[in-house]
Amino acid sequence: MESLKVVKIGGKLIEDKQKLEVFLNDFVNLEGPRILVHGGGNMATDIASKLGFETKMVDGRRITDYNSMQVITMVYGGLLNKNIVAELQALNCNSIGLCGADGNSIISKKRPVKEVNFGYVGDVSNINVGFISSLLQQKIVPVFSAISYGGNGQLFNTNADSMASEIARAMSETYKTELYYCFEKKGVLSDANDDDSVINEINRKKYKELLDKKIISDGMLPKLHNCFEALENGVEQIFLGDATLLRRESIHTKISA
Amino acid sequence: MESLKVVKIGGKLIEDKQKLEVFLNDFVNLEGPRILVHGGGNMATDIASKLGFETKMVDGRRITDYNSMQVITMVYGGLLNKNIVAELQALNCNSIGLCGADGNSIISKKRPVKEVNFGYVGDVSNINVGFISSLLQQKIVPVFSAISYGGNGQLFNTNADSMASEIARAMSETYKTELYYCFEKKGVLSDANDDDSVINEINRKKYKELLDKKIISDGMLPKLHNCFEALENGVEQIFLGDATLLRRESIHTKISA
Repeated sequence: MESLKVVKIGGKLIEDKQKLEVFLNDFVNLEGPRILVHGGGNMATDIASKLGFETKMVDGRRITDYNSMQVITMVYGGLLNKNIVAELQALNCNSIGLCGADGNSIISKKRPVKEVNFGYVGDVSNINVGFISSLLQQKIVPVFSAISYGGNGQLFNTNADSMASEIARAMSETYKTELYYCFEKKGVLSDANDDDSVINEINRKKYKELLDKKIISDGMLPKLHNCFEALENGVEQIFLGDATLLRRESIHTKISA
Repeated sequence: MESLKVVKIGGKLIEDKQKLEVFLNDFVNLEGPRILVHGGGNMATDIASKLGFETKMVDGRRITDYNSMQVITMVYGGLLNKNIVAELQALNCNSIGLCGADGNSIISKKRPVKEVNFGYVGDVSNINVGFISSLLQQKIVPVFSAISYGGNGQLFNTNADSMASEIARAMSETYKTELYYCFEKKGVLSDANDDDSVINEINRKKYKELLDKKIISDGMLPKLHNCFEALENGVEQIFLGDATLLRRESIHTKISA
């Protein structure tokens, strides 16, 4: 099986022009087929507030109402996505910017209403492996914003970490898939206050140990949960690190079964 | 040669939800390969002004400065483009939303600075026929926003009418191509103040006659100029009309050599 790298870059890195440039340069130097998934950071919230739309929170969790979804479609699906594609083209990396509706590539279901109605938030239910593979075979790099398609003409805001892991899982049917999470830290930290306390390797045993000792910070919990789910579903290896993660010599956390 | 329909829908129609629905329903019922190109209307100007960006005009012509280009990328490339794709998917028409940077599909050159520096405005210089054909062969409808790629990471605002005619011209190498302009009028009018004074057919001779008699309104001149250039460069037939243009029984103007 051919190798495939699914790389997720977080919103905070995208907002930092210098770090984004470092990252994109490394990304185009990767060998073989690859997919980019990007988050959105705070830009959507900033623009929403300038447009006079309030960001609604319930129990400390953000709600994606109609106006928020419109702004997310503008900012993630338009501004960020198209500019990243243009930057990649400038580096001679042929790419294509997509949301889940494009080519019916990423289908989701509205997150069920329990205590909280998250609004226009969807959880991935299906990945169009055939369509994505056809782009990869044409040596075109798919660049996904974290917007999925819920059917019936509806776009949904989707967690970018989950989207990346769902893509990696689905693509592992036909590719030997590695998943990379680039975010603002060098990796999983054993001390949330010490950026240099990177744990180099985590396997399932170590993960359980870290959970038991409550060493993993709240923010990292869903990321790591995603990682082990992906490993159980065919993804070969997962790496977490900062904008330099794609470099061979980077300090990072490697996650393996 | 297989037939191909290149359809341009104007910004004013897109902003009218009811007319857009009529149009999209007819569009999905067309037979065979087709491409959609959409304008943006006033939404970008509205959003720019809400964000506190002034729309700059020189000699009555709009200038696309850095901030305008960011807003255009958001609104045309994101909001409008992705929502149109989602609507088409809901109608079982598999489509993909693109700007010129995507797949290096539509390359342009910055409009030369003469009396006016238009800023981030590009005129189409190359169409990636191979890439667009590969989508059509997969039965995926390309949906282009009027944003082209100028190289060096730069996106350019591009006239949607010209983009449609350039696409039609380029695609006519491999397809028998028809071009459709859907806008707010029923066709080319012999009396700008009478919406029912549609001229049913215009050929080159009639065009010259209309020009000589100054019957064509200023707004229609560049559209018709585009049309005859397209006809000279391989496009088979061109149709101009309103949201119902794609219906067999529509009142419209047909342009032929």
